[in-house]
Amino acid sequence: MGRILVLYDSATGNTEKMAMLVAEGVEHVEGMEVRIRSVVDARAEDVLWCNGIAVGTPTNCGILSWKMKKFWDDLVEEYWGRIDGKIGCAFSSSGGWAGGNEVACLSILSVLMNFGFLVFGVTDYVADKFTLHYGAAIAGEPRAEREQEACRRLGRRLAQWVRVYVDGEPDVIQDTGAREHM
Amino acid sequence: MGRILVLYDSATGNTEKMAMLVAEGVEHVEGMEVRIRSVVDARAEDVLWCNGIAVGTPTNCGILSWKMKKFWDDLVEEYWGRIDGKIGCAFSSSGGWAGGNEVACLSILSVLMNFGFLVFGVTDYVADKFTLHYGAAIAGEPRAEREQEACRRLGRRLAQWVRVYVDGEPDVIQDTGAREHM
Amino acid sequence: MGRILVLYDSATGNTEKMAMLVAEGVEHVEGMEVRIRSVVDARAEDVLWCNGIAVGTPTNCGILSWKMKKFWDDLVEEYWGRIDGKIGCAFSSSGGWAGGNEVACLSILSVLMNFGFLVFGVTDYVADKFTLHYGAAIAGEPRAEREQEACRRLGRRLAQWVRVYVDGEPDVIQDTGAREHM
Amino acid sequence: MGRILVLYDSATGNTEKMAMLVAEGVEHVEGMEVRIRSVVDARAEDVLWCNGIAVGTPTNCGILSWKMKKFWDDLVEEYWGRIDGKIGCAFSSSGGWAGGNEVACLSILSVLMNFGFLVFGVTDYVADKFTLHYGAAIAGEPRAEREQEACRRLGRRLAQWVRVYVDGEPDVIQDTGAREHM
Repeated sequence: MGRILVLYDSATGNTEKMAMLVAEGVEHVEGMEVRIRSVVDARAEDVLWCNGIAVGTPTNCGILSWKMKKFWDDLVEEYWGRIDGKIGCAFSSSGGWAGGNEVACLSILSVLMNFGFLVFGVTDYVADKFTLHYGAAIAGEPRAEREQEACRRLGRRLAQWVRVYVDGEPDVIQDTGAREHM
Repeated sequence: MGRILVLYDSATGNTEKMAMLVAEGVEHVEGMEVRIRSVVDARAEDVLWCNGIAVGTPTNCGILSWKMKKFWDDLVEEYWGRIDGKIGCAFSSSGGWAGGNEVACLSILSVLMNFGFLVFGVTDYVADKFTLHYGAAIAGEPRAEREQEACRRLGRRLAQWVRVYVDGEPDVIQDTGAREHM
Repeated sequence: MGRILVLYDSATGNTEKMAMLVAEGVEHVEGMEVRIRSVVDARAEDVLWCNGIAVGTPTNCGILSWKMKKFWDDLVEEYWGRIDGKIGCAFSSSGGWAGGNEVACLSILSVLMNFGFLVFGVTDYVADKFTLHYGAAIAGEPRAEREQEACRRLGRRLAQWVRVYVDGEPDVIQDTGAREHM
Repeated sequence: MGRILVLYDSATGNTEKMAMLVAEGVEHVEGMEVRIRSVVDARAEDVLWCNGIAVGTPTNCGILSWKMKKFWDDLVEEYWGRIDGKIGCAFSSSGGWAGGNEVACLSILSVLMNFGFLVFGVTDYVADKFTLHYGAAIAGEPRAEREQEACRRLGRRLAQWVRVYVDGEPDVIQDTGAREHM
């Protein structure tokens, strides 16, 4: 059993849609419990609860939104240095391609690393010329199948790493699929 | 004449002290007007006013503080895409060395680049084994002379670039001093 | 008059095609002299010569290629700290979207900042949902008009900043076009 | 049992000394086998062999050295997408403080994430105002006890995470020590 938190901020609804798809991906892996929380409703307890976390934000100047930053800044005083070792990943929706969605994912990973989390990107190509090496990163709403699949794949991989590492089931990943679309 | 804004957020007073030193450095260059603004008091008008800007933040999880992020996020709607071409740089105080002060400077530069600013670090060594390649980055309070000089040098270089570029006076920088302490 | 160097490494020809388009963009601005150099043929003298530089690389693990890194590493001993103040920008072609092309651009900008250059991204949207906030970043070959225009826009903006700053002609940029496609 | 690779490039011997200290730290954890390899001697087989990897580089323009980059670029063709899920971390020695050693660590982590590794920093303060949030990052030679301890702590934490995750022994980390020096 693993516990996954999908935590997101959303301004236009796009990042929220990504969050739902990430959660869908988590459910491809058996025995996972998933919580989806908007940053407005999330509490420290949700972070403590989970083994793995996917954090999503609109791309605002290539950095996570101030609301999401505030959530983690507020957590520092009480929890920093006490919740090390969870597994984390990122997703972001930007206004445009080459508009900073990868960089925003990196800023999320930086925050998670500061809390001692182990963070990852995904090597898989989910379609021709479409991957998620620093997390799921798209422009606008996740409409195209490849965009939706990138979100799902992130959730699935997060759940798989949690199962591999937390539950000690290394054979859950046979093939990462990284080379499938090469 | 150039106009320099030193904009900072400070939790413990350390980044504020850095801001004062940066402003001191600006004044080494003749004919500069400088405004120092805490993020609490700063207004969009201050950003519009300046030719060059130094932005400082405590290092919070390797990313600018949420308050500083909020300032820029709030600016996007009205001003983004309309204030391109200013010159920008960064400074940050962290809890410890290797604690993310460089990375926090990079996060500031990312925000400034998103607004179309030209950003820079400083090649100079201000003392043996002490430089500011991504902006002035120190741990704790700026006490040691080399830490204070890093802040001043950032301000001075900002003022020099503003004068070189905005006022067209290229001979204001004869020697960057980069090799002085090598 | 301004002097622009377009310096690139290319494995498959894609980044080379981007380089040609960047150079085309430079030529939209009057009075610019442009040199296009593959990293194999480029020499230190080319970097010394230019006022502005656009550096391109294939996205290899989200970082500039080792060949391009070697070029700059080799330059350090003799030239580092002596060529500060040029204007720089980046471009990169990755295997896929969300595959690290933005991050690779950032790695180039990091190198350029280390040499004391002033670096920039472009706020403009060149088409619906298509921009170049950290430099021109595309997946594969630059085929679509918006991909080609991103490359050209980078070159044009580089030339404009060189003209604004080096030649002191601030009215060369009336409108950055950032809001055109919003 | 876990297998740890300490892979480094070194120009002046400083990063090599860090590598030795990282390896020392690994040995604080029982049952770990450690290989130390200079990038000149390392082979793909060494990467395949390990469960966890610490990669070190001199800070060259805030990015891993071209030699270390070449090692990973050369690995891509045959091994990329086939070795996902190892645990990775970084260390770097720069010419000076605020000279890019954190940023160089981030560039290593970017490469490792591209290969599908789970990467981490360390929350611990190893002394007053001295930590390793993005990996062990120092200026010059690791002489001071706190600098040496940062390297050892990185190795120890890597070995602990490998044991926690690969061997399923979660109680190996009681206290991260993050708050010890606060």
